[in-house]
Formats: sequence, structure tokens, C-alpha cells
Amino acid sequence: MRALKEHLPETEIVLRPERADDPAIRYAVVWKQPPGVLSELPNLSAIFSLGAGVDHILADRTVPDAPIVRVVAEDLTSRMSEYVVWRVLDHFRKGSTYRAQQAAGLWNEHRQPAAGDVTVGILGLGELGRDAAAKLRTIGFKVAGWSRTERRIEGITTFHGAEGLAECLAVSDILVVLLPLTPQTRGLIDDDFLSRLKTETPLGRPVLINAGRGGLQLDSAILRALNDGRLMEASLDVFEREPLPRDSALWRHPQVFVTPHAAASSDPAALAPLIARQIAAHERGEPLENVVDRQAGY
Amino acid sequence: MRALKEHLPETEIVLRPERADDPAIRYAVVWKQPPGVLSELPNLSAIFSLGAGVDHILADRTVPDAPIVRVVAEDLTSRMSEYVVWRVLDHFRKGSTYRAQQAAGLWNEHRQPAAGDVTVGILGLGELGRDAAAKLRTIGFKVAGWSRTERRIEGITTFHGAEGLAECLAVSDILVVLLPLTPQTRGLIDDDFLSRLKTETPLGRPVLINAGRGGLQLDSAILRALNDGRLMEASLDVFEREPLPRDSALWRHPQVFVTPHAAASSDPAALAPLIARQIAAHERGEPLENVVDRQAGY
Repeated sequence: MRALKEHLPETEIVLRPERADDPAIRYAVVWKQPPGVLSELPNLSAIFSLGAGVDHILADRTVPDAPIVRVVAEDLTSRMSEYVVWRVLDHFRKGSTYRAQQAAGLWNEHRQPAAGDVTVGILGLGELGRDAAAKLRTIGFKVAGWSRTERRIEGITTFHGAEGLAECLAVSDILVVLLPLTPQTRGLIDDDFLSRLKTETPLGRPVLINAGRGGLQLDSAILRALNDGRLMEASLDVFEREPLPRDSALWRHPQVFVTPHAAASSDPAALAPLIARQIAAHERGEPLENVVDRQAGY
Repeated sequence: MRALKEHLPETEIVLRPERADDPAIRYAVVWKQPPGVLSELPNLSAIFSLGAGVDHILADRTVPDAPIVRVVAEDLTSRMSEYVVWRVLDHFRKGSTYRAQQAAGLWNEHRQPAAGDVTVGILGLGELGRDAAAKLRTIGFKVAGWSRTERRIEGITTFHGAEGLAECLAVSDILVVLLPLTPQTRGLIDDDFLSRLKTETPLGRPVLINAGRGGLQLDSAILRALNDGRLMEASLDVFEREPLPRDSALWRHPQVFVTPHAAASSDPAALAPLIARQIAAHERGEPLENVVDRQAGY
């Protein structure tokens, strides 16, 4: 809020306004707002999300009909790509194997495929997916990608639509999920989905990385796929319930790497100038950027 | 050897020749050859190393005066950059912290600096160093580099010479060592060297990654720097003695990640065509590429 104030010195900014129907409020900046807090604001021109996802806003059916603006920030995109490249390389370069060997004092080199022999599949080709794809290509991986609607991206094999999804799963050695959570994607990563992955890869079996939303996956289906050998390993930054419950078997599963929804937490101070710029532009009568398609849900 | 045969079908290729002074042998392809095996070959035109380093060849003072050719292979360079980016990201994104938290069932997000606020320093700006530098820049890091002789590289702050080394250490948050082993670099990473690193970094304290040669470092000096807080963490792929002795404290040090000299093991089959191409060119009277400067030692 202080950062926002710095960038909009002449605008009054209130934290959690007292009046639910305050007519002076023109813009709302929210992250996981309590349901109903926006519903009575009569003069709302736009709602800004402090993150790439807006499922937390749309989950509240009482949100007024003002445009919802997703944050598209280089800082946030970069952090997500760091996480994706890090996790892809840690699985690809056998991090867990070498850590276990070190614990046992074992000097034993393992056969290592070349990155160019491995395909990383990315589900979701928005800002985040495209940036991760470009960086993974730079490292040397082949990259395939899937999006709901058709996209063509230089150097990447792309798929789209329902049939395209199965095709993308069938070519991916390491699968990275960066999809938004919508009614269509909820529960996507289920037993059927995990059974469509490759049965053999240069690493042995496929790897799953979910840095999208926990609602995309069934934690139990991932555990079954790990235990019956459909998956070799998984890196999960998101979960059906967050914080991940203490009794979840994912915490202690040796093939799972858990992070606490920390893949891409942007510094709010880095987002303030972007929101301020959009508010100033909108006040000058210019259109808002990165407006959410409520129908599509992202 | 089979791969070499495929690429040089009309050349006789022998594995470990019986006669130490065989006049028919014109080219030698070696990796950690026993001392003396090359010394009596009267007609040697070139010696090829099956790796980027040639210290193992030069350590044998009886090696004849034929040109020594380093392998410069995209496959090997790529694998080294994979290792470097992997290790930089694992330290930068607090891999060990999150693994420890997972083991304890703790959901706790840590403040994460942006890559653009972190400088990775690279010692050695040959093929390997330059490729790693470019890939680290793509991920978002600031990159500084040091080399023995002056080099200018777009987007990278470069230093050279003896004074330049101290300057490079003084700006590096994460230090990556990719130097060749020469009489000048042997034992470089000692107590004095480690005391010239930054005392504060965006991650807390500096990180050391050595993927060059074990002879560059004093294992005991690294342990002291870890234990007295000059170093936060280290990734070591190489050691003074390899395999790393069972009783080395590095194996079980919680701030050290050990790999068994596996950062960039190229598939010999991938190197065969490069060696075959050079032999064919040399036979046509063309000059050899990547010839080692024996004076410099690399």
C-alpha cells in the first residue's frame, strides 16, 4: 500500500474500507478477498488482482461487473520461470538420486541423457508458459505446449483443444502445469490424465511439475501414479488444500518435492507501479490491459 | 572406439597399442592415460583429449611435443551449463531450506530475492564459462566473470589478471569456478581466496560452485569457510582426491552438495565425429582447432 501511495500520490488509498458501499472507491486491489467485500461498491471501475491467477476473485459470485485485471509483471513471470527451470533441471539431472548417494557416501555416476533428447511439455501458454518455454529451450530442452485455444510459438510444438491435450501428454517427458483454475480445468490432473502420460522416457518415467493451482490436481491421484510407477517424481508448489494438511502423504513421499505455494511470489512493491500506471491510464480514458475474460475464467 | 571407427572407416584404430613405439600411430585419443604411454610414439601428429580439461595429459612430462587438442563440443558445453544453472538455482531458490522444511512437514514461505538482484561470478570465460554466463543472464541473473587474460563479453562485467580476481570475488553473490587446472590455478581456492568473498549477499552469505577441477581447491579451506560462516553453501563436483575419500567431512556436511565429477560427462559417441572431422581436416593439410597452449596449460 505504501508503494502504491508513492506511485499515486494524489489518489486517496484506503486499506479495508469501513463502508461496504463507499461511492468514492473507484478501484480495488485484492488478493483472496473475503466473499462479498466488493459486492456493494457502486462506482467500481476496475478490480486488480495481486497475482497472475484470478480464480480467487471469480470464486466470489457477488463480485460486481467491473473489469478484472490480472497482474502481468516481468518480476512475477521471471520468478515462475526460475522455479520451472530449477525443478526441471533438478529432476532431469537426478538431484534426488545424487542427494541420496551423498547421504550414503556413494561415488557413483549415472548415465545422463542430453537435454536435447528430452521434451518438456507445458500446459498453459500464457505469459508464464511462454516465458518458461523460451528459457527451457535456451537450456537445450525440446519444448511442447498446450493451450485451450490455438497458439503458434516459434520453436515449440503446440497443441490445443481437448484432443490436443492427450497428444501433448503423449510427447512430454517432463510435464509442467501452468494453467489457470477455471471450471474447465478444475480436477484436470486426475487418474485418467496421469494414465495418458508416456510409459517410458529418457529419464525412465515421466515427471510432473504443478506450479499452477492446487485445484487443478487431485492429490490422491498423483500419489497413486507415483506409487504404481506411472510417475517417476513430482514437484508440487500447489495443493488441493493449502497449507498442505499435516497428515498428507505428499509431505513424506520420497519422490515428491513440496514447496509452500512459493514458486512465484512477487514483491507487492514491484506490482504497485504497474497497477498505478494502469489506473492513471484508465483515468486518461485509455483501455485497461490484461483484462480477464470472465467467460473463460482467466 | 566403435563411434570413431564409424566416422573414420578407412583408418586403422587400435585400442591400447601393443608396441609403445609403433611408427604407424599418427593420432592418439586419450583420457587419463597412464604416464609414459605416449612418450615413445615417433610419428604422433596430434593428441586428442576426451574432455575439456587437458591437465591429465600435461601432468605426464613425457608426452611428446605433438599438438594437444581439447574437445570443444556443444554436447559437453551444454551439459556443463545445465549443471551450473541447476546448482545456481538450487542455492538461489533455497532448495536445501525447502527440503528440510518438507522433511519436518513445515509450510513456511521464505523471502526470495529477484534474480536481477543477484550477481553470479564466473571464474573462467572459455567456451564453458561464456555459455553458462549467457544462460544465467537469460534466467535473469547479473553475471560477472574473470579470466586470466582480458575478455570483453556483451552484458557481462569482466575482470582479468591478479587484481581483477579480487575484484570479481568482491562482487559475486554466487561464485562458479570453471577454470582449467594449471600450475598457476592449483590450490587457488584456499583460505585467502575464500576470505575475499563478500560478507553479505541478498541470500545472506556467498555460495561456491566448483565444476572445474578438484586441484583448484583445498577441501579443508572450503570446510573452514562453511563452518565459520564465510560461505553459506557449496556445490562441489570435483575434489582434491577423487573419488572423494569416505572419511571426508564434505560427504556429510549439510551445506554441501556433492556430485561424483558428473557435471559434464559427454557421451564419447558424441565426441567421435568431432575428433574424426579434425583428423580428416589435418590429413588434408588444414590446421587443427582448439590446440592447447602448453605454456598456459590449457
